[in-house]
Amino acid sequence: MRAVSGVPESAAAIAAAIREGRTSAREVLEQTLRRISRLDTQLNAFTLVTSKRAVAEAEAVDAARARGETLGPLAGVPYAVKNLFDIAGEVTLAGSKINRDDPPATRDATVIERLHRAGAILLGALNMGEYAYDFTGENAHVGPSHNPHDPAHMTGGSSGGSGAAVGGALVPLALGSDTNGSIRVPSSLCGIFGLKPTFGRMSRAGCYPFCPSLDHVGPLARSVTDLALAFDAMQGPDTRDPVCHADAAEPIAGRLEGEIDDLRVAVLGGYFRQQGSEQAIEAVDRVARTLGARHLVELPETPRARAAAYLITNAESSNLHLERLRTRAADYDPDVRDRMLAGALLPATWTLQAQRFRSWYRREVDRVFERYDVLLAPATPMHAPPIGQRHMTLDGQEMMVRPHLGLYTQPLSFVGLPVVVVPVHTPGTLPIGVQVVAAPWREADALRVAAWLERHGFEAPLPAAHKE
Amino acid sequence: MRAVSGVPESAAAIAAAIREGRTSAREVLEQTLRRISRLDTQLNAFTLVTSKRAVAEAEAVDAARARGETLGPLAGVPYAVKNLFDIAGEVTLAGSKINRDDPPATRDATVIERLHRAGAILLGALNMGEYAYDFTGENAHVGPSHNPHDPAHMTGGSSGGSGAAVGGALVPLALGSDTNGSIRVPSSLCGIFGLKPTFGRMSRAGCYPFCPSLDHVGPLARSVTDLALAFDAMQGPDTRDPVCHADAAEPIAGRLEGEIDDLRVAVLGGYFRQQGSEQAIEAVDRVARTLGARHLVELPETPRARAAAYLITNAESSNLHLERLRTRAADYDPDVRDRMLAGALLPATWTLQAQRFRSWYRREVDRVFERYDVLLAPATPMHAPPIGQRHMTLDGQEMMVRPHLGLYTQPLSFVGLPVVVVPVHTPGTLPIGVQVVAAPWREADALRVAAWLERHGFEAPLPAAHKE
Repeated sequence: MRAVSGVPESAAAIAAAIREGRTSAREVLEQTLRRISRLDTQLNAFTLVTSKRAVAEAEAVDAARARGETLGPLAGVPYAVKNLFDIAGEVTLAGSKINRDDPPATRDATVIERLHRAGAILLGALNMGEYAYDFTGENAHVGPSHNPHDPAHMTGGSSGGSGAAVGGALVPLALGSDTNGSIRVPSSLCGIFGLKPTFGRMSRAGCYPFCPSLDHVGPLARSVTDLALAFDAMQGPDTRDPVCHADAAEPIAGRLEGEIDDLRVAVLGGYFRQQGSEQAIEAVDRVARTLGARHLVELPETPRARAAAYLITNAESSNLHLERLRTRAADYDPDVRDRMLAGALLPATWTLQAQRFRSWYRREVDRVFERYDVLLAPATPMHAPPIGQRHMTLDGQEMMVRPHLGLYTQPLSFVGLPVVVVPVHTPGTLPIGVQVVAAPWREADALRVAAWLERHGFEAPLPAAHKE
Repeated sequence: MRAVSGVPESAAAIAAAIREGRTSAREVLEQTLRRISRLDTQLNAFTLVTSKRAVAEAEAVDAARARGETLGPLAGVPYAVKNLFDIAGEVTLAGSKINRDDPPATRDATVIERLHRAGAILLGALNMGEYAYDFTGENAHVGPSHNPHDPAHMTGGSSGGSGAAVGGALVPLALGSDTNGSIRVPSSLCGIFGLKPTFGRMSRAGCYPFCPSLDHVGPLARSVTDLALAFDAMQGPDTRDPVCHADAAEPIAGRLEGEIDDLRVAVLGGYFRQQGSEQAIEAVDRVARTLGARHLVELPETPRARAAAYLITNAESSNLHLERLRTRAADYDPDVRDRMLAGALLPATWTLQAQRFRSWYRREVDRVFERYDVLLAPATPMHAPPIGQRHMTLDGQEMMVRPHLGLYTQPLSFVGLPVVVVPVHTPGTLPIGVQVVAAPWREADALRVAAWLERHGFEAPLPAAHKE
């Protein structure tokens, strides 16, 4: 198999090879660990490698196969998680220094338990922006994760380590969280696929919370099939997360082939065609042309939706951190601390108004989905900026990089829509992503369109490190 | 039938008499209208009598009977609603002066539609504290409703007109709303039964909102059977109110006879035995003795639960009123306006903390309901104070009357528990109520205990006006 050259196979291919006895989980694991030790010095994606646990899990998979048992759909597939997912026996850092003083988690996050049941091998925890309040992938305590396509550039955040690990092809699959864009921004900047499911679809139990009204978790991968396999394994109700109570979706991974003529696709206009770089708008147009999507549709009051998401995030995260802000302010990343302190002063009437507006905006969005099944928008306003860049100019206006990389993602997660990011790449430039947005609970629609695009040339580019 | 003496029958008796042809809906309506015109001058319960609509509804019931159709369980029963329920064609005042400028409602509130379907005859709208932010039954614009057992005393609020109309036996049934105690406080002070169902059980669509996180609606009546008939007719999911989506309950009205040995009853101790007058505590003890309930049980952190309910109410109501507070501050009841202005300044982190505490408190309360089915507590700390009284002394501490009449109701609605208020009356004194509290979604338990108590002497006292 190709893995011997150091380039990892997809999760689906690894699971098939192990199932068919062409390799073993243990062998895949060893290759993956070697790759991480060779390449992660530059990427800084991993903050913890759980080799011992991974070996035990891989040996269990190989033993199960030896006994003739049916293996799970992800059996032997190595993956890693943003370091805000609880790993039993490990301290859940959530990108912070402060949490280093916490006791270790006593139980895995629900989604880790479910991936374990599907046979996946947990390899470790990944770098992230402090407490997920970030779109850059930088981290004041352990340094930034680096973009696999140019280490001088950002990965995007806050799931920056997840973007680097998958974009850098260290592992075929990683988990991230997305409150306002934290899966979609690094997927865009690192040139990979990422899925933010419908709000409430996937359990957040055992994930360090950032903003309970808006927190989502989901997978990042190098292929749409791998996203779907992970989604199928992780989704469905969980009594440990009160918002996660909807009926489970039909499995999607087997339904990604074939045409998509039944889906009506439109391009988001107005707000979603303003402020972005030429490259961002051209990426959407390229996808739209390939799909034959000609209609532009607008979501009303989108700047207000983004502002409302911002207020809710700011107030809820501050509330969760209030005690630590009082006692350990100096131990925060200053950028995070100052935003949290501001959030602690917001009046309740603003966030209540934001939540009321959310209901209104959701109804408006629902109306658009009566006419279309899938909407297209840029994932980020530009490709990865250089690490350390604080300001950028969009549409002639200078603004901060950190909050504004999420300007196209934030209004969509605000109402919990499922989104798949599809990479768009022109050789010689850094990649950028396009959001493929479906109606609530219709992840399958977005994944089918993304799979179709993947078959029509929109693939995750392989970083140079693997081409040598 | 007894109604000729001017004393109204129960809703159940009226419906039976009409069904059996001993009287007609039209005849009951005329008697009721005469009674209102004779007695409401003193009570000031009605702010609107919808005679024309009532005549049409009564004639429709009589015509249906003449055609041999099966009549609804409340066919021909006159009732009235707190003036925050939408009545098609009428302006929904919600106790205010400001709303007089609103256009008329275009549709009935859902619960009115459902009572109509059960055959009930809507007679009009009832006085209430401005925007429901009240426990006294006083109203700065139209004057106070008066206690039917002593017109110099309060009805309790904010459903004061509902308490006066039912306590004064003008109608057998009225609707109220209860955010922190607004059904239970007037039920207690007016000596009647009142039901605040589980949060989410009964649709609030078409009801003027006060605090969406805590608003409930429910019936007030002179008998438990009538409460249950109204509950059965009104409850169940409604797409017009997003929090009202739980499955409908089994009908309860037919299940109120018989013993209640299967129910484990305890008395709430700690907070719920402090601050109250001797009469309030003795009322609970009398009910407990009759039931043979000997165990005391405490809910932890109850003062905090009340404070949290207070904060959420204050912030949410202010948010709903923000625009009017800016433009029409002078047109508010000053007591309401000043509370709302204070609420507009609350930090978001306080209300978010209050909502998080609510989840915690709910789990603690659930734990108590593993050991008991029904809990007893006073409904109010004292019987009806004189109208106009601003301060009172409880347990040696002077406090405002207006907010503190709800000190025993507020912590229980905070977590949405179903409660039936049962009247306790000693001739020569004003009545007072006891809260019979059940586990979430177990209205039947509270209603069965209340019905048992009614059969054992805890009846709604008839006001003197009807004894003459």
